[in-house]
Amino acid sequence: MPEIIGHNYIGGARSAVGTITLQSHDASSGQALPYHFVQATPEEVDAAAQAASAAYPAFRTLPASRRAEFLEAIATQLDALGDEFVALVTRETALPTGRIQGERGRTSGQMRLFAHVLRRGDFYDARIDRAQPERQPLPRVDLRQYRIGVGPVAVFGASNFPLAFSTAGGDTAAALAAGCPVVFKAHSGHMATAERVANAIIRAAEQTNMPKGVFNMIYGAGVGETLVKHPAIQAVGFTGSLKGGRALCDMAAARPHPIPVFAEMSSINPVLVLPEALQLRGEKIARELAASVVLGCGQFCTKPGLVIGICSPQLNVFIEHLSALMVEQPGQTMLNTGTLDSYSKGLQALHAHPRITHLAGCEQQGKQAQPQLFKADVSLLLNGDPLLQDEVFGPATVLIEVADKAELQRALQCLYGQLTATLIAETGDLQTHGELLSLLEQKVGRVLFNGYPTGVEVCDAMVHGGPYPATSDARGTSVGSVAIERFLRPVCYQNCPDALLPEPLKDANSLGIARLVDGNSTRQPL
Amino acid sequence: MPEIIGHNYIGGARSAVGTITLQSHDASSGQALPYHFVQATPEEVDAAAQAASAAYPAFRTLPASRRAEFLEAIATQLDALGDEFVALVTRETALPTGRIQGERGRTSGQMRLFAHVLRRGDFYDARIDRAQPERQPLPRVDLRQYRIGVGPVAVFGASNFPLAFSTAGGDTAAALAAGCPVVFKAHSGHMATAERVANAIIRAAEQTNMPKGVFNMIYGAGVGETLVKHPAIQAVGFTGSLKGGRALCDMAAARPHPIPVFAEMSSINPVLVLPEALQLRGEKIARELAASVVLGCGQFCTKPGLVIGICSPQLNVFIEHLSALMVEQPGQTMLNTGTLDSYSKGLQALHAHPRITHLAGCEQQGKQAQPQLFKADVSLLLNGDPLLQDEVFGPATVLIEVADKAELQRALQCLYGQLTATLIAETGDLQTHGELLSLLEQKVGRVLFNGYPTGVEVCDAMVHGGPYPATSDARGTSVGSVAIERFLRPVCYQNCPDALLPEPLKDANSLGIARLVDGNSTRQPL
Repeated sequence: MPEIIGHNYIGGARSAVGTITLQSHDASSGQALPYHFVQATPEEVDAAAQAASAAYPAFRTLPASRRAEFLEAIATQLDALGDEFVALVTRETALPTGRIQGERGRTSGQMRLFAHVLRRGDFYDARIDRAQPERQPLPRVDLRQYRIGVGPVAVFGASNFPLAFSTAGGDTAAALAAGCPVVFKAHSGHMATAERVANAIIRAAEQTNMPKGVFNMIYGAGVGETLVKHPAIQAVGFTGSLKGGRALCDMAAARPHPIPVFAEMSSINPVLVLPEALQLRGEKIARELAASVVLGCGQFCTKPGLVIGICSPQLNVFIEHLSALMVEQPGQTMLNTGTLDSYSKGLQALHAHPRITHLAGCEQQGKQAQPQLFKADVSLLLNGDPLLQDEVFGPATVLIEVADKAELQRALQCLYGQLTATLIAETGDLQTHGELLSLLEQKVGRVLFNGYPTGVEVCDAMVHGGPYPATSDARGTSVGSVAIERFLRPVCYQNCPDALLPEPLKDANSLGIARLVDGNSTRQPL
Repeated sequence: MPEIIGHNYIGGARSAVGTITLQSHDASSGQALPYHFVQATPEEVDAAAQAASAAYPAFRTLPASRRAEFLEAIATQLDALGDEFVALVTRETALPTGRIQGERGRTSGQMRLFAHVLRRGDFYDARIDRAQPERQPLPRVDLRQYRIGVGPVAVFGASNFPLAFSTAGGDTAAALAAGCPVVFKAHSGHMATAERVANAIIRAAEQTNMPKGVFNMIYGAGVGETLVKHPAIQAVGFTGSLKGGRALCDMAAARPHPIPVFAEMSSINPVLVLPEALQLRGEKIARELAASVVLGCGQFCTKPGLVIGICSPQLNVFIEHLSALMVEQPGQTMLNTGTLDSYSKGLQALHAHPRITHLAGCEQQGKQAQPQLFKADVSLLLNGDPLLQDEVFGPATVLIEVADKAELQRALQCLYGQLTATLIAETGDLQTHGELLSLLEQKVGRVLFNGYPTGVEVCDAMVHGGPYPATSDARGTSVGSVAIERFLRPVCYQNCPDALLPEPLKDANSLGIARLVDGNSTRQPL
């Protein structure tokens, strides 16, 4: 393993001209790790964005199969990061070994999925409308369209996924797949991890002969603002808090030339527990739900933060079960002290609210997060109390009891946008509450039936997105192959000589991809 | 023909509670027309947005074929608007009869294209990843994704296309196709036209039994701000000036819950005239180019506002031809006095610049716009003088002479984002300047070869978009079938019972649409 030197990654080289250094910490002990990271200067941020910009013309025009090779080489390099690496990540994040091993596989799998998408070619959305010189009253010209990368992309990784939503995470994978060079802002919570992963990406870039500057990484606090405002940056990917994401959105919108920001931010992921399901398997649901709430110390964007049930004897029994289970859940170490502080403050706000009752959980103190269960009056939702809709990042959830079906609908209508909503329901429940699905669709990116939202499959059909404030743009997803679309834009060629057309649009269709030709999908050459 | 009463269209009824009235004018004489339009009050704007919001749940869940019937009914109603209607539009806009007849056909054709897209079903982007209960280490759940309308859309029409980019124009057609009810802000330049067209839409909505509130229209100055800030509105379509579009973008970004704005704004549409082409057919090119510049009094977003040539004897000859032709072009009446004022001011700024020379054109005075040709020093482009990149809306264009190939590339790199760029070139030119295409792709939405950018085909492959400031979001187009994607967002269903799935995602695939099933495109049922 090469030494961790903490220099910024700019255009294929390392750079450390600044004087401010940062340290990473052992998440469990709080002790500083023996590595120093040199905060990028404004000139270095500029250089990183310029390096990405310089790489863009060559990188975006590579055959998609070449970019696929790059992504696959990254995947191989990630898989090869061994036990020492896993130990380092667990040290920086307090996440358990098995979780990090799993996340490593998910991260390399994500790269391979995008490589597959690149080879499949549907991301091009190739369209050809052939000339109709005889058309009356005016002839039609030859028009062909496909999609290209938007330009250099700035990516901000998440605290809670040091691999899958970070340096080589989903946003980086999607941007690189789209042909967009990346400038990654290393998360202060796991900078040593970031360095190891960046090294893996750089090795893959060198092996596959990618242009220098295809991947850049900067360290530091406050460098993100300079990055997002840099004229070379054409889009932003972000996973983190509502406050942080919204600040980036506002900066990007205020630029002389505004750019899109895809921020995945805040979601309380309502879980609706319906009467027949509770009657039939209330205790099992309580067990599964408690497990989902405390999984990974509740540090998931899709943690169920709101549980809604309809007033009934079986709901009362369920609440008893859930309370008993939640009080049994052990404390866990959070990602860092800042996260623990936020969790404590979130709990304090819930405790302090006159219409919220604490149902279960050991007193929050010390270095670990204690799982908590609260119950809130439905009026908080109906009257738009923002406290209830604030994500409390950690192993806590809030239960709400609604009087009946009508109140359930009114309550759901008051929800902000969410990543997920879950229906725990039997067939009879779904017959009684058939209208719920249509309502939930309007609020969320993913509706689950009889499952739990933690655990996000990386595949073609996944949506990890949703209306604001779940994300800044409901039309995107940050997990799954559709994520590439955020970083693509269409370009059209009118009467372009065949020799000059990009390969996906040439008559011969040498790539054999599906194209919409005169309104019909075909893989045939013209 | 029903009387023009100038009341707002709210939820299928007419409303005029306000006290401010506006008048439309004869564009040629400046005289007020005998119609009064009642500016919507803030309460009426709210009611229009609420009506759209109320219509959304029912409208978005209609089978796509039902929305297609609605669009086709609108098309039929538009085609039926007869000579009296055409006369009215020409009166309000000073656009000639033939142009309005053509635009009417384009507008109904646009509706029919989206109806076709709805029946084709590719807009759903249906994706199914089937469950893999035996997968190790974790089973895979069943995940299915398709796209739904984002919610009510506010549309702002253009001055220069009273039909194709207005009440029943491309943005309205795309939003309705996507399942999004519309609140249209009538353009003050053609309110009588807007009323006639709104009546046609309402007739079609009634004929096809659409929910009330599927289409709403409000009159007035300043009502747009209330509309864009309304919480029910989920996206905005706009065609107009950079100033107006940017103001809407800023408002939308500053909302508590920001929404996307698709604004088509400002483009100077560079035309590159290359040496061999000039040598072979310089006079013809000059004729075609002059015709494109003055077409429709230069009131097209795609008017060639910048002509770039490489210093040579044939360029000199070409400039002489072009100057002679431009001076011959007659003055034309503009859309309204505001447009004429803007044109005059734009010309004054060009006249006043020390490094811009006036080559041809009668003095701008009186009630008509006089075609003009200017020549600017290339340093204006290289040094980023904003004047050169400002769109002058009207029959004027600016010529730039570059020293050589290298300077041409540097000049192009300095261009802002554009709707179009055009290469007038012979085979030899394209061999010498092969790198130009790659450079232009990065700047524009559409690259043309040996044609002129005015005239935008409505089809699957068209892109009428481009990087800022051509539009506010380069990932969109406001012409062509891809325009529907601006108003769609993906939703995912996890382990959803087949009976509850939307039709496009059910096992049976009764619609027979193409779906991505486990990574392969197929029309087969599961």
